[in-house]
Amino acid sequence: MNFSLRQKNLRQQLSESKIDAILVSHLPNIRYLCGFTGSAGFLLVSEREKVFFTDSRYRRQAQEQVKGAKVIIARNAVLKAIGDWIGHHHKRWKLGIEAEHLTVAERKRLLDLLPSGLRLLNAPPFVERARMVKDKEELQCIRSAVQLGASLFDRALEVIKPGVKEVEVAAEMEYQARRAGAEGMSFPTIIASGARSALPHGRASEQCIAPGGFVVCDFGVILNGYCSDQTRTVWVGLELDKARSAYYAVKTAQEAAIAAVRSGITVGDVDSAARKVLAKSGFGRYFTHSTGHGVGLEIHEPPRVAAAQTEVLNPGMVITIEPGIYFPGEWGIRIEDMVAVTANGCEILTPTGKDFVAV
Amino acid sequence: MNFSLRQKNLRQQLSESKIDAILVSHLPNIRYLCGFTGSAGFLLVSEREKVFFTDSRYRRQAQEQVKGAKVIIARNAVLKAIGDWIGHHHKRWKLGIEAEHLTVAERKRLLDLLPSGLRLLNAPPFVERARMVKDKEELQCIRSAVQLGASLFDRALEVIKPGVKEVEVAAEMEYQARRAGAEGMSFPTIIASGARSALPHGRASEQCIAPGGFVVCDFGVILNGYCSDQTRTVWVGLELDKARSAYYAVKTAQEAAIAAVRSGITVGDVDSAARKVLAKSGFGRYFTHSTGHGVGLEIHEPPRVAAAQTEVLNPGMVITIEPGIYFPGEWGIRIEDMVAVTANGCEILTPTGKDFVAV
Repeated sequence: MNFSLRQKNLRQQLSESKIDAILVSHLPNIRYLCGFTGSAGFLLVSEREKVFFTDSRYRRQAQEQVKGAKVIIARNAVLKAIGDWIGHHHKRWKLGIEAEHLTVAERKRLLDLLPSGLRLLNAPPFVERARMVKDKEELQCIRSAVQLGASLFDRALEVIKPGVKEVEVAAEMEYQARRAGAEGMSFPTIIASGARSALPHGRASEQCIAPGGFVVCDFGVILNGYCSDQTRTVWVGLELDKARSAYYAVKTAQEAAIAAVRSGITVGDVDSAARKVLAKSGFGRYFTHSTGHGVGLEIHEPPRVAAAQTEVLNPGMVITIEPGIYFPGEWGIRIEDMVAVTANGCEILTPTGKDFVAV
Repeated sequence: MNFSLRQKNLRQQLSESKIDAILVSHLPNIRYLCGFTGSAGFLLVSEREKVFFTDSRYRRQAQEQVKGAKVIIARNAVLKAIGDWIGHHHKRWKLGIEAEHLTVAERKRLLDLLPSGLRLLNAPPFVERARMVKDKEELQCIRSAVQLGASLFDRALEVIKPGVKEVEVAAEMEYQARRAGAEGMSFPTIIASGARSALPHGRASEQCIAPGGFVVCDFGVILNGYCSDQTRTVWVGLELDKARSAYYAVKTAQEAAIAAVRSGITVGDVDSAARKVLAKSGFGRYFTHSTGHGVGLEIHEPPRVAAAQTEVLNPGMVITIEPGIYFPGEWGIRIEDMVAVTANGCEILTPTGKDFVAV
């Protein structure tokens, strides 16, 4: 990964802002900027300096992983080490914090440890904005994660049948993911059968799959730090016309949203493309969530693909397209792919077919 | 779970404080107080009112799970619904927030949405303090999680041998966990072999296990919301006297710390019991982390069992005891059990033996 370019871009942003330096505390932002994958650390970036602070548990890992920044191992609390370093070098800095991530208590502790002439400001989301557009290496990582993720659905289709518990399906998928090299799942696997399919977030439960209902499978893996996210919905039992036609309404909406994706249009327009189709089919009021979200080092990251959102798509952005309809107490259907925005449209990353499947 | 007693205790704490109400935002605290297990919501508790706010995705789940509180489904942003409700009912409240969990940006958004006469205060960690002492039902949940977790080590012993990848060991353990009903792992499984065993946080990697080294296995499951946490270290290959004697030094230290656990002593004293043994064996400087931490709905929760910490143990607290020694570039050893504090000592929850094992 081109950490030096990412750091240079951030320093450029700093030079154009009122902030002298930014204390990056959000771990995915830290990983993006300098490569550190551990679970405790802070990266301080000014126009001239880059210093990574962590504790002794991560001494070796920081030395091996952190690129383009000096590593300081805190003797005691990491925030104290940061306060001391800034107090020694830059007593009058305007220091930006990541307000969306730093807690109120962390901010207070930091303030107490910093020199009195220093000012804390809420920094704009510089790193999140940069992360929205994936570079070539990131796109390659995401493609690999999506391919691995998609292979799990083949396993699910082998396992799903009446009498099998939802968690057993999840167990088989997660096992295959690990065997294939995934670091883990990108979120708790959703296997929601029968009336549970009407829960948009129905994590796999002890419930047995019964004939005559949908099974929503929403799952993803983490591979080399990057997430995949995919949903397929299958029918179990004798096929019903009503189920099939509802399914195809969702599929048409999902494909309409994908067709709308291209550089220059807003995420709100993409959302609206899916919503219009479902409204026309009479399912509008059952589509109760937004159409999608960004994916990368985090499973949910900007942009939100939701009604009335004005963020404009740019080449390299990676988003999910996942309309769904839910009839409480009865059934639910969701179909989700990941796509990468290109100048004229998008690359559909998820390779899995979307035809109605009854098992 | 006795949600009504927990809510009553919190309201008692409020009545003795300067705060009129508390906005509980930390999800494990919300689950503890009212039973909601979803991933978005806020619980507002005053001396007289209890209101749970979430969004439409969790309508059904909130109605089914939330005990002892009115449920309000936000039409738009949840913080806006909270602001509106408070503005309507309690314009001049002193409202406590969970400063250790609420982000700086969330606090700002909330403040902008609240009536101008209202004051935001950082609440003491009322719920975290209550959660430190587990009630009977919680202890039973934790015992079950620990039993399930411990069964995974038997599987690990079947799999660990030269040539097997660390991630394959993790995959087998995680698969068995899921098959046995675990909701997931309580943290990324650590299988650290060879020189990687000297990394206190060496997540399972693609590295193959080689003969002539330790394998640190640190793993836990989530069962019914409660976490387990356990570490065992096994030797692979021909047994070395040096490895065996270092192992027994850690085991003796771990047992000394367990022997020190009882109601009325400080966590610092427990830490010191382990540290003294390792200092005496000449390994003091290689024990680079703290002795343990609380476990419950979260894998890491108060108290921290660390040097000079003054928290006093009380019956019902559940902590880990996990000293370890690490020789960078060579090997590491850690042994960890979970224990529940009793009046005269503790109940060792982890059933797994601790003798030196060479495979």
